[in-house]
Amino acid sequence: MLRTHTCGELRIGDVNKQVTLTGWVQRLRDKGSLLWIDLRDRYGITQLFLEEGKTDALLLQTARQLGREFVVKVDGIAVERLSKNDKMPTGDIEIKISSLEIVNASKTPPFTIEDNTDGGDELRMKYRYLDLRRNPVRESLQLRHKMAQQTRIYLDSLDFIEVETPVLIKSTPEGARDFVVPSRMNPGEFYALPQSPQTFKQLLMVSGFDRYYQLVKCFRDEDLRADRQPEFTQIDCEMAFITQEDILSTFEGLIRHLFKNVKGIDMPTVPHLSYADAMKYYGSDKPDTRFEMKFVELNEVVKGKAFPVFDNAAIVLGICAKGCASFTRKQLDELTEFVRKPQIGATGLIYARCEANGKLKSSVDKFFDEEALSKWTLKFNAQPGDLILILAGPTEKTQKALGELRLHIANQLGLRDKNKFSALWVIDFPLLEWNEETKRFHAMHHPFTSPKLDDLQLLDSDPGKVRANAYDMVINGTEVGGGSIRIHDRPTQQLMFTKLGFSEEEAKKQFGFLMDAFEFGAPPHGGIAFGFDRLCSLFGGADSIRDFIAFPKNNSGRDLMIDTPSTISQEQLNELNIIVKN
Amino acid sequence: MLRTHTCGELRIGDVNKQVTLTGWVQRLRDKGSLLWIDLRDRYGITQLFLEEGKTDALLLQTARQLGREFVVKVDGIAVERLSKNDKMPTGDIEIKISSLEIVNASKTPPFTIEDNTDGGDELRMKYRYLDLRRNPVRESLQLRHKMAQQTRIYLDSLDFIEVETPVLIKSTPEGARDFVVPSRMNPGEFYALPQSPQTFKQLLMVSGFDRYYQLVKCFRDEDLRADRQPEFTQIDCEMAFITQEDILSTFEGLIRHLFKNVKGIDMPTVPHLSYADAMKYYGSDKPDTRFEMKFVELNEVVKGKAFPVFDNAAIVLGICAKGCASFTRKQLDELTEFVRKPQIGATGLIYARCEANGKLKSSVDKFFDEEALSKWTLKFNAQPGDLILILAGPTEKTQKALGELRLHIANQLGLRDKNKFSALWVIDFPLLEWNEETKRFHAMHHPFTSPKLDDLQLLDSDPGKVRANAYDMVINGTEVGGGSIRIHDRPTQQLMFTKLGFSEEEAKKQFGFLMDAFEFGAPPHGGIAFGFDRLCSLFGGADSIRDFIAFPKNNSGRDLMIDTPSTISQEQLNELNIIVKN
Repeated sequence: MLRTHTCGELRIGDVNKQVTLTGWVQRLRDKGSLLWIDLRDRYGITQLFLEEGKTDALLLQTARQLGREFVVKVDGIAVERLSKNDKMPTGDIEIKISSLEIVNASKTPPFTIEDNTDGGDELRMKYRYLDLRRNPVRESLQLRHKMAQQTRIYLDSLDFIEVETPVLIKSTPEGARDFVVPSRMNPGEFYALPQSPQTFKQLLMVSGFDRYYQLVKCFRDEDLRADRQPEFTQIDCEMAFITQEDILSTFEGLIRHLFKNVKGIDMPTVPHLSYADAMKYYGSDKPDTRFEMKFVELNEVVKGKAFPVFDNAAIVLGICAKGCASFTRKQLDELTEFVRKPQIGATGLIYARCEANGKLKSSVDKFFDEEALSKWTLKFNAQPGDLILILAGPTEKTQKALGELRLHIANQLGLRDKNKFSALWVIDFPLLEWNEETKRFHAMHHPFTSPKLDDLQLLDSDPGKVRANAYDMVINGTEVGGGSIRIHDRPTQQLMFTKLGFSEEEAKKQFGFLMDAFEFGAPPHGGIAFGFDRLCSLFGGADSIRDFIAFPKNNSGRDLMIDTPSTISQEQLNELNIIVKN
Repeated sequence: MLRTHTCGELRIGDVNKQVTLTGWVQRLRDKGSLLWIDLRDRYGITQLFLEEGKTDALLLQTARQLGREFVVKVDGIAVERLSKNDKMPTGDIEIKISSLEIVNASKTPPFTIEDNTDGGDELRMKYRYLDLRRNPVRESLQLRHKMAQQTRIYLDSLDFIEVETPVLIKSTPEGARDFVVPSRMNPGEFYALPQSPQTFKQLLMVSGFDRYYQLVKCFRDEDLRADRQPEFTQIDCEMAFITQEDILSTFEGLIRHLFKNVKGIDMPTVPHLSYADAMKYYGSDKPDTRFEMKFVELNEVVKGKAFPVFDNAAIVLGICAKGCASFTRKQLDELTEFVRKPQIGATGLIYARCEANGKLKSSVDKFFDEEALSKWTLKFNAQPGDLILILAGPTEKTQKALGELRLHIANQLGLRDKNKFSALWVIDFPLLEWNEETKRFHAMHHPFTSPKLDDLQLLDSDPGKVRANAYDMVINGTEVGGGSIRIHDRPTQQLMFTKLGFSEEEAKKQFGFLMDAFEFGAPPHGGIAFGFDRLCSLFGGADSIRDFIAFPKNNSGRDLMIDTPSTISQEQLNELNIIVKN
């Protein structure tokens, strides 16, 4: 090694040691008679110094040429600092340098290499290798490494085996769009990159592998919304000879292991909530349960009071915002504006303040007298100082709108603390969902998810009501993982494809190998996949996944650093037997 | 879990326990009054039995319907076997079953699920999910998992950090052919799949990550020779602030750790051999050093004896095959035929037997008298019973031919024992190699490899003589890994591209980002990549890598199981803005 120690290593016990350090110049302070250099590497910062008169003149001259981000190698002796810096682990010592070599110079970086940089997003992505030098970004990737390590430790300890599944697979139109790869050796034919290793992990169960996992890259050619990446990583898992409860407890175990070993947090048992209840109480299949503010249904206490907004609504739903009775007119108007935004879609907002005497003062007092309002108080268990917010309208739409309002208020009240974590299982998802565009049912999870046996008889009469053996893990209002117990016999799988509008021929062409496999002794099995990038960003307390990916792409799917996608040569196109349209 | 125990778990201490097992029917033996079932899962086999008269008739009837590979669930009690089977870990007990459920039936598999199957390669690949049930294949993947675990344990312990690099990158024509991915969002542009994460890991060093590794999928669109896969896995590593010696000792450590912890073998220190010496003594840059049989150069003792074959040859080279003097005429003819094969290319083979009296009897006795031959004996240190084999011709060609002959003989003599392991570092590779086809020098390793400083002055006068800071790890004659100390400054990198025939514009378009990065404080760095599939097959004592890959492709790059590559829809082609040529 070119160094004897890292820049994060030396302590008071190392005083008088002769050391060699390498690293980057973070900062240079030239006080004339004394010159300090902060030398940085991945492990920390160590302070170096030179003293005019006591140092070789040439050495001093070299030191004065240093710029930010120069790579240097220094020899010196560790000495105790006169004024210690207890904010840095190496703050008790500094290095009196006896030689200094400029290993590599640096041009001035296009943005500062500091925790809070002056660089914009595009610039930071173009010079990602400099952005990665910044502590927050480096720490995000170190956290990711630790998450991966601990995931493997947990799963290995339970006899899971990591198996690599192929990246060059087959295009299947169900689901999102595939990235495809033209085959040179098979002209006119294409591979596809996997959106997930779903069918392969199921085949591994048919093979008897029993407990599989993989940290695996997956690919989706979707129009990129903020914080979506065309390539992303999953913790992909599957188990055989299990019930749904086995899966939930095994992977609740994973999440608790990660919280314990990465964050030092003891997570409580993860509660289960049905999809139906999630919609009923939170208006979302991924409720944020860091705070309560559950929905209260008011139909029985508000109908028939000649208030048409309530009388004509399928549902009247409210939440009680603790301690918000003091909201000003302006704040309430802002809330009304919020719910009226097209993406929220409510027509208006009704509110009632709970006053010091415990009585409600509402925006609809002319329809509801004191007695009527007292029933509201009871329903919400409202206390003096609380604010009740009510929406009315069609059930699903109103639930979703109130769900958004709930989150909006929680943000305002600071109830969504990034250092607090609340996990839950949402279970009993619908098997199918109606798609207005295609005018048919689509699989809510994917076509391999098994229906609940009790609901099978509804498959013809009321397909939307059939529940699946499907589950999501939700943490802080984010879906971090999801899975299901799979179909493991050919007739059910065939039936499912039929219900999803596949012709028998299509089903066979795309998934014939899987249905064939089910005929050779397929065990009951199920699994789950966690979005690893998202899970890491959640653990890191960040909103964006970008800094948890070493080399992310922008919203147009471009890597600005290497400048790709890019054109390829005519020779390559010829070999691949394809033509680019003009 | 549907079971209380696995099929590999029960021992004599479990006798009288009530258990539930699940698994596959390996075998059914119906002796009329007694019926045995071998139940198999990933963990082992457990014997079940039913006794006529003492068992419910319906249960017996169900058991008699079982076929091979049926999935069943049984309840029963563990009892001590009368005749124990010490060949299986569960051989002391059997299960007297009280209930049996057919969880899933199985059609008769197309080949037997036994260690030695009757299935051919194509059939086994089409039904890979059944092939994976066979012990040797399952064990190969379990070995792979263990190799990956131990690799991570070792590298993690040395502060390496695993960083995922992107799969959708940029096409660069240098090296092998890229697989490309059309970009829908950027019409006419393409991503490429990485042949290795080379530039990204170097950028991570520029970022200060210091010690990086990744078990990573790589892709090469090459014409597939036997045992080449279009996608393969590397243990990819890079370190900064190091010398070549640091890299060699760190990764010698990895290999020794793997042998110790996966195979229980204490590997000796790994010797270093220069490329020049590897060619001189073994005629190969990846010599098999499980056995000696080094080359002996005979020029000084054979020239000037009026034997034109030797007199006209640039080099006369031989090996001494211990104890092979008894080879018959037929065996010697076979060796002559071997060296004359076009792919070996020698014109003939000269031999000499060392007889009981220590004297040589050669095929060229008329040119060499006893005294002349005695010099040969000395050169080879030949002992009675040895056989000397000699080739003559142009230096490089003769070295390579004799290298092949050396391996051929060693195979015949059983010197290439799969359970013996011999590793070495081949170092000081040439920087460039001449390509007759393109009539220019190509990088022997890749364009990022640094030349030896001492040889830099030869770069213009004699480029082929310039040595690189490049090294390969060779085990048992197989190159399992290779790497180099990289260039880390713009001028040298630019010079290298120029020498390789890149125009300045091309170099900038393809690798401008890397050269830019070198101007912002790039540390000295280097690394290595191991071929993980190959390393696993070597540890597994197998010739082929196929069974160490869960879902391999055949030699036409096809996955026979999922039947891909395959055609995609016109709609997909339209979205991607490409046309397939007819």
